[in-house]
Amino acid sequence: MLAAMFNKRYGSPGSSPATLTPHLVDGVGRKPVIQLIEYDRDHLVEREISDLAGLPDDLDNGKVTWINIDGLGDVEALTALGKRFGLHPLALEDVLNTGQRPKIEYDSNYVFIVAQMLYQNTSRVMCGEQVSLFLGKGFLVTVQQEADYDVFDPVRARIRSGLGTIRKAGPDYLAYALLDSIIDHYYPVLEDFGNAIEDLEDDLLERPTREMVHTLHGHKRELGQMRRFIWPLRDVVNGLLHDPSGHITEETKVYLRDCYDHTVQLMDLVEIYRELTSGLMDLYHSSVSLRTNEVMRVLTVITSIFIPLTFIAGVYGMNFAPESRTGERLPLNMPELYQPNGYIAVIALMALIAAIQLVIFKKMKWL
Amino acid sequence: MLAAMFNKRYGSPGSSPATLTPHLVDGVGRKPVIQLIEYDRDHLVEREISDLAGLPDDLDNGKVTWINIDGLGDVEALTALGKRFGLHPLALEDVLNTGQRPKIEYDSNYVFIVAQMLYQNTSRVMCGEQVSLFLGKGFLVTVQQEADYDVFDPVRARIRSGLGTIRKAGPDYLAYALLDSIIDHYYPVLEDFGNAIEDLEDDLLERPTREMVHTLHGHKRELGQMRRFIWPLRDVVNGLLHDPSGHITEETKVYLRDCYDHTVQLMDLVEIYRELTSGLMDLYHSSVSLRTNEVMRVLTVITSIFIPLTFIAGVYGMNFAPESRTGERLPLNMPELYQPNGYIAVIALMALIAAIQLVIFKKMKWL
Amino acid sequence: MLAAMFNKRYGSPGSSPATLTPHLVDGVGRKPVIQLIEYDRDHLVEREISDLAGLPDDLDNGKVTWINIDGLGDVEALTALGKRFGLHPLALEDVLNTGQRPKIEYDSNYVFIVAQMLYQNTSRVMCGEQVSLFLGKGFLVTVQQEADYDVFDPVRARIRSGLGTIRKAGPDYLAYALLDSIIDHYYPVLEDFGNAIEDLEDDLLERPTREMVHTLHGHKRELGQMRRFIWPLRDVVNGLLHDPSGHITEETKVYLRDCYDHTVQLMDLVEIYRELTSGLMDLYHSSVSLRTNEVMRVLTVITSIFIPLTFIAGVYGMNFAPESRTGERLPLNMPELYQPNGYIAVIALMALIAAIQLVIFKKMKWL
Amino acid sequence: MLAAMFNKRYGSPGSSPATLTPHLVDGVGRKPVIQLIEYDRDHLVEREISDLAGLPDDLDNGKVTWINIDGLGDVEALTALGKRFGLHPLALEDVLNTGQRPKIEYDSNYVFIVAQMLYQNTSRVMCGEQVSLFLGKGFLVTVQQEADYDVFDPVRARIRSGLGTIRKAGPDYLAYALLDSIIDHYYPVLEDFGNAIEDLEDDLLERPTREMVHTLHGHKRELGQMRRFIWPLRDVVNGLLHDPSGHITEETKVYLRDCYDHTVQLMDLVEIYRELTSGLMDLYHSSVSLRTNEVMRVLTVITSIFIPLTFIAGVYGMNFAPESRTGERLPLNMPELYQPNGYIAVIALMALIAAIQLVIFKKMKWL
Amino acid sequence: MLAAMFNKRYGSPGSSPATLTPHLVDGVGRKPVIQLIEYDRDHLVEREISDLAGLPDDLDNGKVTWINIDGLGDVEALTALGKRFGLHPLALEDVLNTGQRPKIEYDSNYVFIVAQMLYQNTSRVMCGEQVSLFLGKGFLVTVQQEADYDVFDPVRARIRSGLGTIRKAGPDYLAYALLDSIIDHYYPVLEDFGNAIEDLEDDLLERPTREMVHTLHGHKRELGQMRRFIWPLRDVVNGLLHDPSGHITEETKVYLRDCYDHTVQLMDLVEIYRELTSGLMDLYHSSVSLRTNEVMRVLTVITSIFIPLTFIAGVYGMNFAPESRTGERLPLNMPELYQPNGYIAVIALMALIAAIQLVIFKKMKWL
Repeated sequence: MLAAMFNKRYGSPGSSPATLTPHLVDGVGRKPVIQLIEYDRDHLVEREISDLAGLPDDLDNGKVTWINIDGLGDVEALTALGKRFGLHPLALEDVLNTGQRPKIEYDSNYVFIVAQMLYQNTSRVMCGEQVSLFLGKGFLVTVQQEADYDVFDPVRARIRSGLGTIRKAGPDYLAYALLDSIIDHYYPVLEDFGNAIEDLEDDLLERPTREMVHTLHGHKRELGQMRRFIWPLRDVVNGLLHDPSGHITEETKVYLRDCYDHTVQLMDLVEIYRELTSGLMDLYHSSVSLRTNEVMRVLTVITSIFIPLTFIAGVYGMNFAPESRTGERLPLNMPELYQPNGYIAVIALMALIAAIQLVIFKKMKWL
Repeated sequence: MLAAMFNKRYGSPGSSPATLTPHLVDGVGRKPVIQLIEYDRDHLVEREISDLAGLPDDLDNGKVTWINIDGLGDVEALTALGKRFGLHPLALEDVLNTGQRPKIEYDSNYVFIVAQMLYQNTSRVMCGEQVSLFLGKGFLVTVQQEADYDVFDPVRARIRSGLGTIRKAGPDYLAYALLDSIIDHYYPVLEDFGNAIEDLEDDLLERPTREMVHTLHGHKRELGQMRRFIWPLRDVVNGLLHDPSGHITEETKVYLRDCYDHTVQLMDLVEIYRELTSGLMDLYHSSVSLRTNEVMRVLTVITSIFIPLTFIAGVYGMNFAPESRTGERLPLNMPELYQPNGYIAVIALMALIAAIQLVIFKKMKWL
Repeated sequence: MLAAMFNKRYGSPGSSPATLTPHLVDGVGRKPVIQLIEYDRDHLVEREISDLAGLPDDLDNGKVTWINIDGLGDVEALTALGKRFGLHPLALEDVLNTGQRPKIEYDSNYVFIVAQMLYQNTSRVMCGEQVSLFLGKGFLVTVQQEADYDVFDPVRARIRSGLGTIRKAGPDYLAYALLDSIIDHYYPVLEDFGNAIEDLEDDLLERPTREMVHTLHGHKRELGQMRRFIWPLRDVVNGLLHDPSGHITEETKVYLRDCYDHTVQLMDLVEIYRELTSGLMDLYHSSVSLRTNEVMRVLTVITSIFIPLTFIAGVYGMNFAPESRTGERLPLNMPELYQPNGYIAVIALMALIAAIQLVIFKKMKWL
Repeated sequence: MLAAMFNKRYGSPGSSPATLTPHLVDGVGRKPVIQLIEYDRDHLVEREISDLAGLPDDLDNGKVTWINIDGLGDVEALTALGKRFGLHPLALEDVLNTGQRPKIEYDSNYVFIVAQMLYQNTSRVMCGEQVSLFLGKGFLVTVQQEADYDVFDPVRARIRSGLGTIRKAGPDYLAYALLDSIIDHYYPVLEDFGNAIEDLEDDLLERPTREMVHTLHGHKRELGQMRRFIWPLRDVVNGLLHDPSGHITEETKVYLRDCYDHTVQLMDLVEIYRELTSGLMDLYHSSVSLRTNEVMRVLTVITSIFIPLTFIAGVYGMNFAPESRTGERLPLNMPELYQPNGYIAVIALMALIAAIQLVIFKKMKWL
Repeated sequence: MLAAMFNKRYGSPGSSPATLTPHLVDGVGRKPVIQLIEYDRDHLVEREISDLAGLPDDLDNGKVTWINIDGLGDVEALTALGKRFGLHPLALEDVLNTGQRPKIEYDSNYVFIVAQMLYQNTSRVMCGEQVSLFLGKGFLVTVQQEADYDVFDPVRARIRSGLGTIRKAGPDYLAYALLDSIIDHYYPVLEDFGNAIEDLEDDLLERPTREMVHTLHGHKRELGQMRRFIWPLRDVVNGLLHDPSGHITEETKVYLRDCYDHTVQLMDLVEIYRELTSGLMDLYHSSVSLRTNEVMRVLTVITSIFIPLTFIAGVYGMNFAPESRTGERLPLNMPELYQPNGYIAVIALMALIAAIQLVIFKKMKWL
């Protein structure tokens, strides 16, 4: 799923702009699930609708209308939505071409926001999904890729409970609350990242393996791509803070400023983890080269000690004859072999050589 | 072809500015192929012309006149073109000196745009080519290097079909459509890049070879140069968005904004791949050093186990004599050799030493 | 403690904004310690209060009222504080969610400042703690995480002594004095860093170990995170210098400029140490690879000298028989063994080979 | 010569500003060569003059007066020049202190430009030289370091031929033409660089040597320094484009814009080559470490195969006696030696061990 | 001394701002040396004074009064100075807390400049020292750390000689002349750096040692810190160029522009040397790894050649018996040993194996 999010979908090169290509599963575009929540301070209506015919004619009726669409398989439904709310075909194309950079666009009668959710689903697998928001007078339309899970449940709960500011405010506050929820869900994902990286650090120093480099490389990659979602998200929030369109009230801007601080902190975290992974790569390199150094030292010490000894043994294994073939004595040929203490002397010599080397290696701190 | 595009052509140093040098193939400058497409909402004329004499006198006649010239071998034809449309000689020089940075220049009566196409030809070989566009009142002149293939066919098909906006709009929309097609064709090229890089990653971890580094280095180079085409392209599109000349209508600007988003996404992709290739270089280094470490460990373990054993065997291969040359017994010379269980004891000792070492190496996780 | 500071606390994702979560120790939120200091040029009252009821009604009474709260375990006390001084709930949330980036925010009737203290406690362990300051007309409220130790004692001493400017100035000067104390306490911490890094450098060149890399990596990390506290602190001080709210007098700004210089110098220091740690990592790598090189040289020299000698000894240890099994003489089989000076000649040959190699290695500067 | 250019000359520290120090060759300052070219659309006078006395009184006579001075050995001639044209002593100091950054300065009655030529002389050796230009009303003074060769010959030829724009335009166009010639001469130098780097790449992969690193390091250095000439040159051209003094006509600015594009392309080229050299350094490192890996593999395979075999041979070379010294039979001492097929069995065992190892190494892809 | 300059002195954290701490030598603060030079076009008075009582009352008397104070051991003298000239206590604190970043501050009646001198003393040891300048109406006060040596002697000589502009200009020109002298003295220091780096390069390629890395690391460090003095110095000069206070005349600004160019050139030089040292670190790494590779090659070649030969010798050193213990002939046991040419054949075989290996290694270019 994460990988899916990271892959940018794009239309066929050269095709007409605003060409809408549905998302197909096994060749079939599934019908989207449309949820409607209508509320003001005193009322709350929440229902699932099959098409947009059931919407009230005038949305600017003092209530907040939140339409959440899950699923991108049905181009006609999207087109109908576009017509109903006056959405630009290019914006709808962006909704379908998932993997967009987060962005904000102001159209004549709505604000169009693209963001990327990142969350851990119920089995703690990291998932990603594009969310598109259309914020207009009295309404907010959100479009997501899948119906299974989203990060909006806490917000729905707040609407239902009626506590806090949300029921008293307009759709701009709702848009803020959803963005805030999207941003806040990055924190636990990044925290998991941090823990994984710290675990890796200990393992790396202990015993570096090929798999760790692979994992590390994967982390680096994911961080690099996360960063590409968070940085523009900050610009999105900043764009809302300097909203020229009048869709965002001053009260909501106070909250958005808080939201902005959070994106800055997320960026800080991502940078910290990026530096850490780079540092770990360094650590890995130095760990491997230090291990190679240690291995070499062991090899060198053992070889250096035994090679001269083996040579000496080899010398006294030579077969120089005590007599020539004609029977003459050859007193110069290996007289050591015929000494009463020859063997013991040689063994002692060997022990001495080994001892001297041990002392030297000790002094050089190779042992 | 790609390489060809990457090599900047330049005039002879110190030569007069706006000196036009034709592209020669085997010493001959081929005549260019000139295609004329004239259309408005209701009419469409499409023909190949041999020279510019056949053009209507007044191009600002409510129709869009698209003149596409393939081939840079004929300086006279270009000069004629320049005269007919009032093009500055320095712009014509840029048309001929291929390998330009993408750029935009506003002249009194036209906009001059240079872009670089990148596409896969019919046999999926990556090709590159410079395209120059002159956008004026009622006309668009495009000049390409070669006649074989270009990325404009989808646009021509849209014009012929009469569907979409293109037939209803002016030459500025046509220029946008061509630029959009150029930009969109970068996507599949980059996608192929991504796949090639991912394949490399698996191979690298499996078994690093010299060829992979070479390939990687080549990828890095190509990405570096692609980046030099895409970054200024963004500025070109941005320049059109802030067009001071009135050649670009507000309607077209909406589409150009979409186009701008695409260039930003391309830049993101190129950066992602650049980081990935850097990461792979790192991966390669660590993979090689880890392999060296493993090789060393094998060497060290085998050597460390056998060298002491060989030494012991060497010791008992020494020829210290049981009797001196004068026949006296030398009981201290290698008495082990004359023990009933000497051989077995030595073999057992060797087995013990080997076993101890194996245990140690196991504990040090070298095995 | 340092680690604690570096970990950003965040609310439950999707929860209502301005949700206040107390800091619990063993599941219990301890009551905060509230210290009140009220002074002007001639008077000084200093006492500990249990709740905010004891505060005078009108704080803008010509005196400076400094309320210092230690401990974040009691949400109700904080809420009461917020009500008494008109503090925004989002600001109170930031007070509780420690690990914030230093920041400055202007509200209608106060300036809200977040900073991070870094100090060595009495046993010279490095500690960190978030400090939040609310500067309003006639009052300054500071909130800290823990009651044990803070960096404000020198300022308290200056208030008590009545020397210097502090008793003559307003709460803005007090805020400056506290910020200045926070900033000045970074110096000894960084100085310790510098000393630790210099010690490491000597050790690294002497004998690189795994632990040093670990330490170095830890330093890098801490510096990276310190930097994230100091950089925004500069912006905080700069924000006060360009105070749009009138809370900061021109006299205090002169001192704040000095404060600003200090943050710039701290940033310089952090950058210097960051470069140094990077350089040390480099040094480590080169030190290890040079050592490996030396180890290899020793191995190569010893092996190269003894292997040929051992081979020669091996040759003369072969058992080629002087007579065939049928008793014929085999004069070509190892006649050297039967020469009067064979042994001595071979020993001399070995010595010669060793000597030549030593000369060669000497010339190649491997010895 | 290149090196010479790269070394900044500077006056004695603390000396009075505008102290003019002549360039001496063997302790002697040679007299400069002064060439005068005076032209307008219809006339052309070209002569060498020995001093400035021969100049017409009024230079603003509708003609362009180009005075080219080769050689910096004569301070008096320069001072005279300064007086005649009202040049500031600090500018003259810059003329003499060669190795300046390219820069542009506007004085009351002239524009002062410093640029650095880079060219290949007749024997294709790369040379560099500082050129100073003083552009005023009706005149252009250029001062070069040496008389041997410059990059202005193509411009002189264009003046003589009378073709193109040059004879019809003023001294600003002449200044442009000279700058353009200087800039264009960087192209072949950089092209040579590119070829040298590509040659290196092939060699590096084939067989890395110490010399290549040295060459590569030299290239990096030269590119770094070239970059320091080209980047400010862009600012110089940009400064002329935004000329506040009225010395540059609008017509010339069109050409200068082209010139500006060229400097941007040069910067692109330099960056490409800088990245390539960095990449080659990487390639070198990986090439060396891969080779070391291969060498190690060969060593390990050969050692691993033969060491166990040698050990076995050593075992059967031990001299455990079949009888004790007192003549008792010791049947447990190396009974294998007395088996009819003992020798063959051992040889077969050795072959088996070697074969197994070969299979293992083959599987591990070490062979 | 250099190190001394690099260490920032700071007050005790939390102490009152503008706390003046004297520099003590062996616990004693030495009295400063105060030199007074008063001059105009026609007069020059130069004397040493013990305290400030001897100063004329009105300094704005048409003459330039330069007071140079050497030594920071006497806080009272400094305080007196501050009172006499109306200097801000925070500025005096900066004078004493040496190791400041160069900076410029405008106060109501003077300009306060901090710069760092870098020079080679008479025994060519590099030294550094902080200089503080107070430029006011008619006077210039300079404060230095030590009395031994400074870089102002050439300026004093120019004042005494009366040549050049200095005697005709005001204190702003004097300040420029001193700054210029400070800046110019960086050149020879940097030139020495360049030479040292070039020497290192040759040594590195020849034979890398631990000491060189250490030296290189030291150079990097010093360059990094020099950079921190030169970059802000540029801002200081730029600040003077855009002087808002009227202390700097237009005539002096022309000279300051020249001064500004010099700081830019110094920055260029520092960057060049920084790149060079980084390059050298790279060179070092590659040099070491190439050497390791060479060492390994030697080891591998020698081992690969002799190990198989030694093995063969070992085989024919085995003691397989020609007869069983019961005296039966064992014709299969090592029949080679009893061949007339057995020995020669084995020696020939060994020679052949060695020769083949040599050819192979030659082909692989390992020799």
